Amino acid sequence: MEVEVKFKASIDVEDKIRSIAEFVCEKEEIDLYFNSPVRDFRKSDEALRIRKDPEGVKITYKGPKIDPETKTRKEIEISVDDYDMAVELLKRLGFIPVREVVKRRRIYRLEDVTICFDEVKGLGTFVEIEMKSEDLESAKRKILEIAKRLGFDPARSIRKSYLELLEEI
Amino acid sequence: MEVEVKFKASIDVEDKIRSIAEFVCEKEEIDLYFNSPVRDFRKSDEALRIRKDPEGVKITYKGPKIDPETKTRKEIEISVDDYDMAVELLKRLGFIPVREVVKRRRIYRLEDVTICFDEVKGLGTFVEIEMKSEDLESAKRKILEIAKRLGFDPARSIRKSYLELLEEI
Repeated sequence: MEVEVKFKASIDVEDKIRSIAEFVCEKEEIDLYFNSPVRDFRKSDEALRIRKDPEGVKITYKGPKIDPETKTRKEIEISVDDYDMAVELLKRLGFIPVREVVKRRRIYRLEDVTICFDEVKGLGTFVEIEMKSEDLESAKRKILEIAKRLGFDPARSIRKSYLELLEEI
Repeated sequence: MEVEVKFKASIDVEDKIRSIAEFVCEKEEIDLYFNSPVRDFRKSDEALRIRKDPEGVKITYKGPKIDPETKTRKEIEISVDDYDMAVELLKRLGFIPVREVVKRRRIYRLEDVTICFDEVKGLGTFVEIEMKSEDLESAKRKILEIAKRLGFDPARSIRKSYLELLEEI
């Protein structure tokens, strides 16, 4: 499971992140999202994307969110060897490309928690705090505590994906 | 495009293959085939499988056959890093596991043509002669000529996949 919270953030929040977490890397992530021919992923709250970044190419499926306060959801991810072939494969299987989401992401690490400072093309800056865990309650406590340390109000967490936010514009 | 012919073969055909082509490797291939939730792949003549062999894991889509004499068809293939995750991903996306096809394959090479001597679990021994090419007519001539050199009658080529042959039993 991916346990995650997201907040709209001003630029200066990154200084606070730097003061508590260790910088890992900066990269541009290009995500191409697909909809399903079987059920509308916007309604079923699922997501399917192909991500291209300097580390390689990944296909990721995200299940419906299962927690009212966070973006916690089942995530299945595989690394693949070829972006164009992966796009072609999903298209042949009936999946429909919806939109590209492009962001510059700076990744920080605090123990087993990942903090991302994201500049999303067309949307602005956001902070995502996440960890992989099967112990949801404990993981949620941990990431919400970090959110508070960074000055965020958990009640103002954003449960919508960047894709959904871009679709609303 | 994958241009391919297949024949039922007796064991001794492998000696003939050895006399004209170079041995590449022997391996066990385990293919898990899926059907689509959108259209019945048995009727649309498409195929989707995950292959596991000693070299790794691949997802392959095969389009409908486009030639009356051969198994020529569009093929899209990506290498992935994890078999279980790939199976889980396809299942979550609505694809239904149909059947596993297991074979011991000995691969031979003759210029740009691949000749496979296959012992298919539950079916017996077969020879597949194939090459990747966009020049279908030239590729077809080439592989049918090799088929004749191995003593096969092109009119007796098998257009059904191992999956289809197993489903008929």
